[in-house]
Amino acid sequence: MSVGIVETKFVHFDTELRLESGRILGPISIAYETYGELNADKSNAILVAHAWTGSAHLAGRHSEDDKKPGWWDEIVGPGRLLDTNRYFVICSNIIGSCYGSTGPTSINPKTGRRYNLTFPVITVRDMVRAQQLLIDFLGIRKLLAVMGGSMGGMQALEWSTCYPDRIASAIVLATSGRPSPMAIAMNAVARWAIFNDPSWKKGEYRKNPKDGLALARGIGHITFLSDLSMLEKFGRRFSARDGQFDFFGQFEVERYLSYNGYNFVDRFDANSFLYLAKALDLYDVSWGCESLHEAFAPVRSPLQFFAFTSDWLYPPYQTEEMVRVLEELGKPVEYHLIESNYGHDAFLLEHEAFAPNVKGFLEKVEKSSGFE
Amino acid sequence: MSVGIVETKFVHFDTELRLESGRILGPISIAYETYGELNADKSNAILVAHAWTGSAHLAGRHSEDDKKPGWWDEIVGPGRLLDTNRYFVICSNIIGSCYGSTGPTSINPKTGRRYNLTFPVITVRDMVRAQQLLIDFLGIRKLLAVMGGSMGGMQALEWSTCYPDRIASAIVLATSGRPSPMAIAMNAVARWAIFNDPSWKKGEYRKNPKDGLALARGIGHITFLSDLSMLEKFGRRFSARDGQFDFFGQFEVERYLSYNGYNFVDRFDANSFLYLAKALDLYDVSWGCESLHEAFAPVRSPLQFFAFTSDWLYPPYQTEEMVRVLEELGKPVEYHLIESNYGHDAFLLEHEAFAPNVKGFLEKVEKSSGFE
Repeated sequence: MSVGIVETKFVHFDTELRLESGRILGPISIAYETYGELNADKSNAILVAHAWTGSAHLAGRHSEDDKKPGWWDEIVGPGRLLDTNRYFVICSNIIGSCYGSTGPTSINPKTGRRYNLTFPVITVRDMVRAQQLLIDFLGIRKLLAVMGGSMGGMQALEWSTCYPDRIASAIVLATSGRPSPMAIAMNAVARWAIFNDPSWKKGEYRKNPKDGLALARGIGHITFLSDLSMLEKFGRRFSARDGQFDFFGQFEVERYLSYNGYNFVDRFDANSFLYLAKALDLYDVSWGCESLHEAFAPVRSPLQFFAFTSDWLYPPYQTEEMVRVLEELGKPVEYHLIESNYGHDAFLLEHEAFAPNVKGFLEKVEKSSGFE
Repeated sequence: MSVGIVETKFVHFDTELRLESGRILGPISIAYETYGELNADKSNAILVAHAWTGSAHLAGRHSEDDKKPGWWDEIVGPGRLLDTNRYFVICSNIIGSCYGSTGPTSINPKTGRRYNLTFPVITVRDMVRAQQLLIDFLGIRKLLAVMGGSMGGMQALEWSTCYPDRIASAIVLATSGRPSPMAIAMNAVARWAIFNDPSWKKGEYRKNPKDGLALARGIGHITFLSDLSMLEKFGRRFSARDGQFDFFGQFEVERYLSYNGYNFVDRFDANSFLYLAKALDLYDVSWGCESLHEAFAPVRSPLQFFAFTSDWLYPPYQTEEMVRVLEELGKPVEYHLIESNYGHDAFLLEHEAFAPNVKGFLEKVEKSSGFE
């Protein structure tokens, strides 16, 4: 069942984070939600890390008349995969985002103005560094698991490699250890779409640059789908309300991209989109290392990986490369390739396919970590 | 060897074409080039059909100091695959383009002004209908072959299915009988990029809308490449002149897209780009038919198909579907799947891989058509 009505909490840290770029960011605010109860020895906490445009609002509703539940509601709640009768589930908004944690829309206390493009370029490692402040604040020494898909999976990888003694396991879905130039190219044209919008004003807009941001999001949607899922969803159908010989007539798939693109403008900030796209592209689990082997050498706890056959943004071979290296290093690793037509989005849609494996994995981790 | 110095010729038809849309277009100008000599019984003519942004300038150079030869120079000339000692090779600019044939940049004689968006939406079938005027003008009753890749292949398919008695064979490379919604989606966001550019002015610009058109072309380039070719060409390298933590810093692949995008603005018209993108998306070899079987029923001459393993724009399965139907109909068809990392661009780059097969195919066709 659902976790019911929840609220987003905020915590403020009067600290200065040293970022990968060498720049300093601080103070830091973090928006987060929690579900379930932390047990006495604080050993039942699972951190769920969100993707690019996600938020801390993982599950439940903010009010009775809230139209939609949190972004991964299906797997969080009493009796659900992340059973809140058993686990204390945490989700925090990443820095750089626009949903309550410090990002380009935040006021820079040193200037009294929005950061906008004075915000430093951040990496996934920086996001995890900020997440640690929250985990410390909650009094948790060791997370039972960090779980996430896409950019959320990258965060799980950073926890595994940079803070191996603070997690008992990681569950990584639809992720890349280092996105390919194809993925970078798609983000590059999305960025370009925003840069081209005169109302973006080098980030100094008052109102979101809607045409550029909508197009950028439309491009993103292509990468979340697959040839097969589009074929099933839209085929080659032309919009029923347009003529095929209308210059501005649209195919169904075209209308879908446009519709979802313009909806996005109401909910996400263009500068945040740009900073997070950059963090995705820069992501390299072997950042600062000579090799993947060196990067994964510090891993101490089991990793469970899921890849999805039709995911062309972060194709299975990229997960398999990491799994191979972890196996070569003798690390505890599990890998499941899920047959799915949903493309990259599969990690949000195929929970019934991966839930039994995650459940079994968590039970093993709990036993070995002495939680039961 | 090269065909040497060539020139583009122009022919003007005081005719009115009835288009698939039901609209009338005319008069029609066609730009074309020819190489080699038409033989006495006019049986040695090969029409090469160009792709999206190509031109009639297939081979040779326009002057001694011309920097680049025609777009498929490697396969046309004395002793080359399309041996001009043997064949009379024709290439004509498609209508809708901006390289001399009637298109949105042409002056509408009825108004004395550029067509711009008053130009009718055209289809590949319309392009071939216009090409026929040229073939008639050249006094050729039957082409020995029509050959083309991508949109050029679509034209070859139209010749095969709509004018079966006017060709002795067709050679079709990297083509789709009906592009998938994935291909349509990529063109859709390219169109959107131009629509977003305020200097496009609903097609009434004086100067090409450069930012929108460059981005549209950048998006196109992604579809021409492949995950593998980008990995080989760019890897994840960051531009040497940018810092990784510069907000506007670019990956190599990003710089490539930008560089090629802005170069394109000097050579191609934005409205033409839009009309031809639409023609690509609308293309359906079974247009007006109930099935692929019905569409291919009229075929009378052999078809040779090439698909390329890493082509994700028009993936091999789309060619294979056509081949299967032709086989089921008992039509003479040959299919070659070429292993290549170059993606859709492979058809322009892998001529050494397909040339021997094309050569053998043409020899067979010549024998059976009584040319020898």
